[in-house]
Amino acid sequence: MELIEILGMVAGSISAITFLPQVIKTWRTKSAADISLLMFTFATISVILWLVYGIVKKSVPIIYTNSLVLVFSVIMLYFKFRYGKSHTTATGGTVKVVLPKEQVTS
Amino acid sequence: MELIEILGMVAGSISAITFLPQVIKTWRTKSAADISLLMFTFATISVILWLVYGIVKKSVPIIYTNSLVLVFSVIMLYFKFRYGKSHTTATGGTVKVVLPKEQVTS
Repeated sequence: MELIEILGMVAGSISAITFLPQVIKTWRTKSAADISLLMFTFATISVILWLVYGIVKKSVPIIYTNSLVLVFSVIMLYFKFRYGKSHTTATGGTVKVVLPKEQVTS
Repeated sequence: MELIEILGMVAGSISAITFLPQVIKTWRTKSAADISLLMFTFATISVILWLVYGIVKKSVPIIYTNSLVLVFSVIMLYFKFRYGKSHTTATGGTVKVVLPKEQVTS
């Protein structure tokens, strides 16, 4: 294997797991209010196109990278729909409020 | 230009702006608590390696895609450091509390 293909494999390996820390974080916190739905929509569409590109170009790094990214992107779309709920303030800020009942006076 | 290169350009165009909705959302909400720092660290490292791969392989879609992704990744790293602060509950959940002063009794 050429040196450049090895570099491609390393780049692909890191790209492939780029979304994994986000999947783990969101799975743990059950909170996805700050996350952009559009980001993972774009990600899902683009990796499908990259898969086709990689298959035609016979580029192993592109194929295996985008296969994994597709899995994590779809999981994040699911998490966004499941955990993306939040209250929005008048100024458009995202606010999640958790207080003991005795502290709530109104 | 071959059809497959056009597909690559389309894939690259969507990939290139994948992080843009997240940049806009975080810039508007000033809230990045739910976002994984490691995700954008991985993204930054991998796109630099992909840039080298694209340059050696003379793949225009890979070069221009990763140049743009690099810009948005670095912006998100900055936003994460600037807006990533949050309070953490005993159970590890992420909580952001914003209340009018008169509602806070303790």
